[in-house]
Amino acid sequence: MKIINFDTQRTGEKPAGFSDRRERLHQIVFESDTRAGRLFDIVLLWMIVFSIVLLMLDTVPSIQAKWGKTLYSLEWAVTVFFTIEYLIRLYSVYKPMKYVTSFYGLVDIASILPVYLSLFIPGAHSLMIVRSLRLMRLFRIFKMNLFVNQGNQILQAIRMSREKILVFTFFVLLMVFVFGSVMYVIEHNVNEGFDSIPTSIYWAIVTITTVGYGDISPVTPLGKFFASLIMMLGYAVIAVPTGIVTSSLVNLGRKQSAQHCPGCSREGHEEDALYCKYCGVGLGG
Amino acid sequence: MKIINFDTQRTGEKPAGFSDRRERLHQIVFESDTRAGRLFDIVLLWMIVFSIVLLMLDTVPSIQAKWGKTLYSLEWAVTVFFTIEYLIRLYSVYKPMKYVTSFYGLVDIASILPVYLSLFIPGAHSLMIVRSLRLMRLFRIFKMNLFVNQGNQILQAIRMSREKILVFTFFVLLMVFVFGSVMYVIEHNVNEGFDSIPTSIYWAIVTITTVGYGDISPVTPLGKFFASLIMMLGYAVIAVPTGIVTSSLVNLGRKQSAQHCPGCSREGHEEDALYCKYCGVGLGG
Amino acid sequence: MKIINFDTQRTGEKPAGFSDRRERLHQIVFESDTRAGRLFDIVLLWMIVFSIVLLMLDTVPSIQAKWGKTLYSLEWAVTVFFTIEYLIRLYSVYKPMKYVTSFYGLVDIASILPVYLSLFIPGAHSLMIVRSLRLMRLFRIFKMNLFVNQGNQILQAIRMSREKILVFTFFVLLMVFVFGSVMYVIEHNVNEGFDSIPTSIYWAIVTITTVGYGDISPVTPLGKFFASLIMMLGYAVIAVPTGIVTSSLVNLGRKQSAQHCPGCSREGHEEDALYCKYCGVGLGG
Amino acid sequence: MKIINFDTQRTGEKPAGFSDRRERLHQIVFESDTRAGRLFDIVLLWMIVFSIVLLMLDTVPSIQAKWGKTLYSLEWAVTVFFTIEYLIRLYSVYKPMKYVTSFYGLVDIASILPVYLSLFIPGAHSLMIVRSLRLMRLFRIFKMNLFVNQGNQILQAIRMSREKILVFTFFVLLMVFVFGSVMYVIEHNVNEGFDSIPTSIYWAIVTITTVGYGDISPVTPLGKFFASLIMMLGYAVIAVPTGIVTSSLVNLGRKQSAQHCPGCSREGHEEDALYCKYCGVGLGG
Repeated sequence: MKIINFDTQRTGEKPAGFSDRRERLHQIVFESDTRAGRLFDIVLLWMIVFSIVLLMLDTVPSIQAKWGKTLYSLEWAVTVFFTIEYLIRLYSVYKPMKYVTSFYGLVDIASILPVYLSLFIPGAHSLMIVRSLRLMRLFRIFKMNLFVNQGNQILQAIRMSREKILVFTFFVLLMVFVFGSVMYVIEHNVNEGFDSIPTSIYWAIVTITTVGYGDISPVTPLGKFFASLIMMLGYAVIAVPTGIVTSSLVNLGRKQSAQHCPGCSREGHEEDALYCKYCGVGLGG
Repeated sequence: MKIINFDTQRTGEKPAGFSDRRERLHQIVFESDTRAGRLFDIVLLWMIVFSIVLLMLDTVPSIQAKWGKTLYSLEWAVTVFFTIEYLIRLYSVYKPMKYVTSFYGLVDIASILPVYLSLFIPGAHSLMIVRSLRLMRLFRIFKMNLFVNQGNQILQAIRMSREKILVFTFFVLLMVFVFGSVMYVIEHNVNEGFDSIPTSIYWAIVTITTVGYGDISPVTPLGKFFASLIMMLGYAVIAVPTGIVTSSLVNLGRKQSAQHCPGCSREGHEEDALYCKYCGVGLGG
Repeated sequence: MKIINFDTQRTGEKPAGFSDRRERLHQIVFESDTRAGRLFDIVLLWMIVFSIVLLMLDTVPSIQAKWGKTLYSLEWAVTVFFTIEYLIRLYSVYKPMKYVTSFYGLVDIASILPVYLSLFIPGAHSLMIVRSLRLMRLFRIFKMNLFVNQGNQILQAIRMSREKILVFTFFVLLMVFVFGSVMYVIEHNVNEGFDSIPTSIYWAIVTITTVGYGDISPVTPLGKFFASLIMMLGYAVIAVPTGIVTSSLVNLGRKQSAQHCPGCSREGHEEDALYCKYCGVGLGG
Repeated sequence: MKIINFDTQRTGEKPAGFSDRRERLHQIVFESDTRAGRLFDIVLLWMIVFSIVLLMLDTVPSIQAKWGKTLYSLEWAVTVFFTIEYLIRLYSVYKPMKYVTSFYGLVDIASILPVYLSLFIPGAHSLMIVRSLRLMRLFRIFKMNLFVNQGNQILQAIRMSREKILVFTFFVLLMVFVFGSVMYVIEHNVNEGFDSIPTSIYWAIVTITTVGYGDISPVTPLGKFFASLIMMLGYAVIAVPTGIVTSSLVNLGRKQSAQHCPGCSREGHEEDALYCKYCGVGLGG
């Protein structure tokens, strides 16, 4: 029941004419069973963490002013390292296209591309933060299959209630459109904050999600009264997504009798079942 | 188990003396089985989206200053289109009164009326945002019955706990009245924000729903202490509506098929069960 | 399974020497089966609503300036009406002391006392808002037993998890004490907002309950980092009270097989039970 | 099923050569069965509360200015009292090292150390608030075993979903890194608030946890649009931890007694069941 495949690069047979050297590189770069492989993984992990810290420090004005040049050099060093790593991966994988289009493959390229783009497009540079996604390698490196399973279980619960969440989102969008518009009508003559319907919709979202920055807030008595209504409604409404996800998780947790049917070998029976619900054979439990 | 009937216009027999031309129009305007019908639906959908974008842009001062006249003309064009559509619907439906009073019928008229009203009443114009409700036709157009079912399930869960929610709302209203009043007594001499009980109640609602704009906040030590109590209480209280809706959804999910086993006449089988889990007899479902 | 007794005044036998006149008054004032009784209830209800509106308007400066004298007279009129009502209740009830100490009896006296107190203590006046609690008579007047039951069910769910909530509250209090103190150490030299530990604790409560007024917020990098930790923790922590109340409500909803055992006539069996869990007799369901 | 052991000091046999005097002290300091023991507990409790109040008052500027010297003396008095108490505990416990490393032992030393440290390190003083943790002795003193059990139940529910919570936290961290960075790119040219990526990440955390101070908020239309997306997402995301903890608590509540029926050997009986619900045989529990 894996939803995100974290390991597409290892699928398939070894193609003909795949040299031993590529095979060895593959073991180091993609696997972590050998000593060299594990060392590579740990070095890589620290490089990722290091590059994220670099990027963040680079945007702090006081640090940038003092260490700007050093940071710039270090960043390029890291990027070159990541580029070489990417090329080695391409070289040593069985099916390069499958790797390139896999989840990890996309994250790998997305974490080096912005640096090269920043030579041409100012600002693209900052998108480099995508690198933090590379931290997900952590799961594989430490063989935290348990964690991946748990993540999949959350995803599955969300997936099970996908339609409910979509309908709910649609309903919330309708609400913020209508509420934002009504507040615009009520407030925009006396309150600079509600200067257009898009801004009023932004306010409605800030309010209904209970974020409440306070950069825009009603000033007229009628506006305050109406805002109170929206908040009370939002209070009830926040219960819905929670209820949806929770009931999915509870239902997932309930279907856990791990017994296989002796007749058809299928599982997923309720705990009190005496006969297989698929083939009618006694479960003998 | 449909709660909102999204399709009232299609009910009933074809009345006598209903011309073929009206029948053909009915197929185009109300149904989406024919090519013409589907085309009409898609054009309509884009007109709805287009009209909402128009309305929003019209309230942004910088855009209004530059493109005000164009927007005004386009808005009237869309409104005329919607008016004609409404008249065709009235003309081609079997039972016009049933359509007029149906959910869609009300939304359809509410999305054109404000424009005409705006000729007489300034501001009515903005209520046009009701048009966004027309987007619900989306569900029918793409035959997203699944979504409608899911929406109904959420509505049913809320309906099941209607009384609990009402009692809870009443209780919360009592709380904000009492808390708002007490904070007024504590703060109004030194804090401009708490200038009247209605304003203090507004503050209590902003606080208990955890929105917390910060436009009004306590300044005296006693006020801060009391506000802390309200927040801690609100923290516990927010758990209640969530609990109500979640337990309804969990119970809805538990209510498996109401089928009785032909062998032992017991119920409580899961929806995908083929054989009775108690006696192994085929359910024949 | 009534937790709050909303009707203590009707308990007990009619005492000896209770005149017919008092009996008739009892029927009008406490019951709503006769026409006069129902009329009295409705008049009373509107007087309560009217008195609350009066009180709120009285604190709005602009209205107070213009209508202050009228409001003052009307308020005294309402108070005299409530005082007479209270005396009649005392006179016509079977056991006056039981009424005085009942929930409604306390609310009734608490809604008139502040007005008399306001002659001596300025400010006491505002506590009159306690009157809003009288609106709970609504439940009895409209015979909304269903609502009272639902309210009791919520109370029961909260009661079932009383200890869990207490432990959790204690834990949250410990957290805000420790976090508030740490933030005081970090911020108080550069940030006026964190000027003492009590204020820092107030900030921690505002933050952990996700209210977030923004009247006090961290300015140092370390403070922002630490505040982020608190918010992330608060994010997880808010799940706990919800989980507690929800699981209580789900468990309450589960024990609902209304079947009585044919052997010992006890109920509360699970839906899949074949034999009574108390006496072992077959349920024959 | 105890998770936190609140009573490690009482474990083990009385060691040889443990004098009667130490034994008597042990009874007074660690136990509360004798009159002297209970008296000591109550005095200790009030000393703890008193010391916390002292510490808080000491940081309020107006009180500090007036009573600073008195507070300073009282604080040292309390600290000396706690130090003596700690030494007595060390002296009278069976296994001193086990006490020192137990939960209470660590809290006890942490509540006196900061005062001595404050002689050398300014500020360390404030960490004394750790003393509030000593209030947990409350549970033991009043024999509130029920509360400890409930606390353990909450901890167990959190423990059961430890991996899910970790995965979720990791996912939220990734989100705030990426969102914070994107907002930095969008806003930092026109908005002083988003002056660096770390600050933008702080803003993303404030937003996604729905705290919403408003000290930093988007000003560009694109920033507001993107912030709306984050808020809507955060709205859905807040459902996940709640769902995780709730489903754990519901499952904990469901796990009925693990007893097997002696007749049919099936389990899943409720805790108050006397007879098997499947075959009617007495459970003999």
